[in-house]
Amino acid sequence: MEEFKVHILGCGSANPLGRHLPASQVLGMRGKLFMVDCGEGTQTRLARQGLHMNRLGHIFISHVHGDHCFGLPGLVSTMGLLGRSAQLHIHGPRELQPFLDATLSVFCQQLTFPVLFHAVDTTVHTLVYEDRSLQVYSLPLNHRVPTCGYLFREREGQRHINRSVTDAYDIPLFALNSIKAGADWTLPDGTLVPNERLTTPPSPTRSWAYVSDTRVKDDLAPLLQGVDLLYHEATFLQADLFRAKQTYHSTASEAGRIARMAHARRLCIGHFSARINTPQLEHLLLSEAQAEFPHTLLADEGLTLSL
Amino acid sequence: MEEFKVHILGCGSANPLGRHLPASQVLGMRGKLFMVDCGEGTQTRLARQGLHMNRLGHIFISHVHGDHCFGLPGLVSTMGLLGRSAQLHIHGPRELQPFLDATLSVFCQQLTFPVLFHAVDTTVHTLVYEDRSLQVYSLPLNHRVPTCGYLFREREGQRHINRSVTDAYDIPLFALNSIKAGADWTLPDGTLVPNERLTTPPSPTRSWAYVSDTRVKDDLAPLLQGVDLLYHEATFLQADLFRAKQTYHSTASEAGRIARMAHARRLCIGHFSARINTPQLEHLLLSEAQAEFPHTLLADEGLTLSL
Repeated sequence: MEEFKVHILGCGSANPLGRHLPASQVLGMRGKLFMVDCGEGTQTRLARQGLHMNRLGHIFISHVHGDHCFGLPGLVSTMGLLGRSAQLHIHGPRELQPFLDATLSVFCQQLTFPVLFHAVDTTVHTLVYEDRSLQVYSLPLNHRVPTCGYLFREREGQRHINRSVTDAYDIPLFALNSIKAGADWTLPDGTLVPNERLTTPPSPTRSWAYVSDTRVKDDLAPLLQGVDLLYHEATFLQADLFRAKQTYHSTASEAGRIARMAHARRLCIGHFSARINTPQLEHLLLSEAQAEFPHTLLADEGLTLSL
Repeated sequence: MEEFKVHILGCGSANPLGRHLPASQVLGMRGKLFMVDCGEGTQTRLARQGLHMNRLGHIFISHVHGDHCFGLPGLVSTMGLLGRSAQLHIHGPRELQPFLDATLSVFCQQLTFPVLFHAVDTTVHTLVYEDRSLQVYSLPLNHRVPTCGYLFREREGQRHINRSVTDAYDIPLFALNSIKAGADWTLPDGTLVPNERLTTPPSPTRSWAYVSDTRVKDDLAPLLQGVDLLYHEATFLQADLFRAKQTYHSTASEAGRIARMAHARRLCIGHFSARINTPQLEHLLLSEAQAEFPHTLLADEGLTLSL
C-alpha cells in the first residue's frame, strides 16, 4: 500500500515564546506533499523533517491569522531561489489574496514558477481539489474570521487480481486491466466467472481531517464519519470553557466529543494555548480528551502518523 | 557607562537550510532596542536572547529581500497579541511599504498600537533618526535592489563632575548641572575656577555600522572613520570574487579592506553564502578578512558584542 502519512511541522497557537511552533501539517501521499497552514518557520521545519519542497504542489490555508500564514513568503521565495519551475497552488479564504499579491510583487518579481491562488468558500462543505488518487473537501468552521478545515480522502483504487485464480483459468494479460476495473470473465466453453472470484477488494481508502481554529461544531461530525485521523484543535482545558467560547476555540473535551460522534479511528489534538506551558498541562488536556475518546494523542513537532 | 551592545540574532544569507538564520541584529542602548533587518524567525530569536520586544521602538530595514524582512509580519502581530500600546517605527526603502500595508490590512486590523513607516532614501548618506543619546545615519550601498546600511552613533554626553574638587570649593548642588554642561565657577572672592578643573571629559561615544548587502564600496570608508564595530557582509571567499561581483556581494577580504581603510576598532563579518557550509570554510573566510584587518571576528547567532 502506498504511503499516506501526516507530518506535524508545528502545532502551537499564536504564542511564539511557547513550547510549540506555529501551525503547519503536511500529508505525504504517493510521492506528493500537501500542506495545510504555513506558520512562520515552516520552510525550516520541512527541511528538518526531510520533506523536499519540490514535492509540494498544493498549500491549503485555513484562515488569515498570522500563526497560520506567515511562513508563506519565505517558503515561496526559497522555492524561487532553488529554481523551481512547477506551479504552486495556494488554496485559502479570499482574504489571503492581497497579502500574497503584495509578497509576490515586492519580493518575487523574478519568480521562476507560477503561483496560482484559488479562493475557497469557507462557508460550505465542498470539493476544493481532486486528482487521480485524492479528493480534498472544505469543512466550514466557526472562528473570529472566515475559516475552514480540510478533509483529505484517498480515492478508491482498483480491485486486486488474484493471480492464482486468473492463472488457473489461463486468462491473458491483456484482459487483466478490465478485470481490475470490475469485469467478469467468460471461459471458452461459455461459463461466466464472476469478478469476485478473480479479484479481491481494493485497498481501504484512508482519510485525514484538519480542524483548526474553531468553536466546537457538532454538525461537523456527519462530514467526518469514519475518518482515520482527525486533527482537532484543543486550545483550552475544560476549566477555560468560557474563554474557549469567547475566543472561538475548542476545549480538549469538545475535540474528544467530535471524534466520538464522528466514529474517528484516531484523534490528534493541538493548537495548545499559551496557558498550556508545561508537559503536565498538555497531559491534562490529553486526559480530558481521552475521557471522551480514548484513542487520542498529543500533536508535537516532528511527529509523523502513517495511516 | 551605559550599555551599548550589539546582539546578533541571525547572520545567514538567503539559505534557510544553512547553518545560520536570516539577517537580524539589535542594538541595546540605555534600555532601548534598535533592530536592523528582520528575517523570518526573528521574534523567536529575540525571546531566546532575552530581549523584550516592548523595549523595541525602531526597526531599520536595509532592503526588500525576503531574508531581511520576512520576520516583520510575525513580530508586529505578536506585539499586537501582547497588547502593545507604544508606537512602532519602521524605517526602510519605500519599496517595503506595500508589503507592510498588506500585512497590516489583512492580519492586523485590530492592532493595539500605531505602526509608522518612514521611507529612507537609500541613495544618500543622511540622518534618518535621532534622539537625546543616539543618531542613526543611512549608508548608501550597491546591491541588486535599493539598499542602505545604517550607522549608529552615540551622541556625546555631558562632562563628569569631579566631586572631590567641587566639594573642596563648596559648590552647591544646584550649580552642578550647568558645570556638567561646561560652565566655569566663580568663588566668593571673585576667583574663576575653570571647568576643566571641576570636571573630567564625557565618556567616549560609541558607534556601530551595519553594512549588508553590497558590492564592496571603497567610498564608504570615509563615512565610517573610527567606527567601534563595523559589521560588513562577507558572502564569498576571494576565490568567488567573480560571483561576488555578479550577485552584488562582497568577499571577506574586501570587508577587511573597508575596515582597514575606515580605521575601525573591530570588524564582524557575516551573511555567509550557502557555499560556506562548514566551520572550516567559515574560518577560511575569517583568515582572508584577517589578512586585511586582524581584529575581525565571525558573526554567529547568540553573539553579543559590548562596545
